[in-house]
Amino acid sequence: QIAAEVFTTRGGAGPLQGLKVVVTAGPTREKIDPVRFISNRSSGKMGYAVAEAAREAGAHVVLVSGPVQIPTPRGVERVDVESAEQMLSAVQSNVVGADIFIAAAAVSDYRCREIACEKIKKTSDTLNLALARAPDVLATVSRGEHKPFLVGFAAETEHVERNALTKLINKNLDMIAANKVGDGLAFDKDDNALTVYWQDGKRELSLTSKAALARQLVELIAERYRARGQT
Amino acid sequence: QIAAEVFTTRGGAGPLQGLKVVVTAGPTREKIDPVRFISNRSSGKMGYAVAEAAREAGAHVVLVSGPVQIPTPRGVERVDVESAEQMLSAVQSNVVGADIFIAAAAVSDYRCREIACEKIKKTSDTLNLALARAPDVLATVSRGEHKPFLVGFAAETEHVERNALTKLINKNLDMIAANKVGDGLAFDKDDNALTVYWQDGKRELSLTSKAALARQLVELIAERYRARGQT
Repeated sequence: QIAAEVFTTRGGAGPLQGLKVVVTAGPTREKIDPVRFISNRSSGKMGYAVAEAAREAGAHVVLVSGPVQIPTPRGVERVDVESAEQMLSAVQSNVVGADIFIAAAAVSDYRCREIACEKIKKTSDTLNLALARAPDVLATVSRGEHKPFLVGFAAETEHVERNALTKLINKNLDMIAANKVGDGLAFDKDDNALTVYWQDGKRELSLTSKAALARQLVELIAERYRARGQT
Repeated sequence: QIAAEVFTTRGGAGPLQGLKVVVTAGPTREKIDPVRFISNRSSGKMGYAVAEAAREAGAHVVLVSGPVQIPTPRGVERVDVESAEQMLSAVQSNVVGADIFIAAAAVSDYRCREIACEKIKKTSDTLNLALARAPDVLATVSRGEHKPFLVGFAAETEHVERNALTKLINKNLDMIAANKVGDGLAFDKDDNALTVYWQDGKRELSLTSKAALARQLVELIAERYRARGQT
């Protein structure tokens, strides 16, 4: 009983045994007013599958999640957030002591410059929403003092490889998992395919269920994480 | 068996027996680009409960639904849409021959004036989103040739009664169900309270489950619908 409890909270055998992994998942929402918001099509399925796979691989997993309708994977510690700013803050408190940070959330790039306290009435025919950059969670962790092994995601509608490699270098990541998105691709689907890039390598993970894909990705992360430790 | 099938699709005994009711539910999403959108906090729970209650009251129910994670109530015909424009179009084709239209969806008031074909890159520190008015589904049906008995909803953060009565008159509705929303109120909750207004009356439906509230509301709608028929 006690052993099972320890297993549940501390992680068990597997390639990530003894490691603390922080995963983000889902979209974020940036308020326009108390009722309206800007968000994106991320379903959170990929991030949740990665959190579950990391847990199965023996890690202690903290899942920082935007608003999604998915049950928490067994043995995973979940922190719910809404905005990019809240996600950054939750990640910063949980990334301390973490070995690996996997940023699968689709964090809003822009937030509203002013949030209306009351619901905006539709009095005018047009409206201009002034947006400012939202905090970049992954880049902020990358610039931080205790930088874990960093895995990013790039969901792109085109120029997938170029955009992914730019992100890998600019944000100083250890790995990036890229996929093409758009009408009928990836979002809200149960299947996905990824191309994973790192400093001097690349691997294609072909179309399969997000659960199977997540296990392959986690295996690859464990492999690269250990390789980094050895150089 | 056949009787049960007929019951399921045509409606059975109850105060709305033999009537066709169109219900809208959930939020709509207005695309910014292939990945991002503007939406609102409507969970769709109230609209789905109303559709179910109308079905139980014997009506043939068509439910035009924005993106939500709720199973379709048994015996209800469901049409899925995303944007305000799509909702209008689905409502217009289904409202023909309908006796009652219950507009419980939180339709976006504004849509993006231009939708980007590619995912917008976060190259600039600020961004201006130019919005234009989205089609007003309820007002359009109200101005239409075959106007059914019209029931609107008003979710307001303040001045609830004033805003609800303005909407009742401006959109030429038969009834409006108003509630206060905001942090911790109504949205995504399983409980709700409503104040229902019509030309010369008002009724308070106090805090209870959305399922119970929907049954009370449907009873009141049936009562007012018959009262209108008699004058």
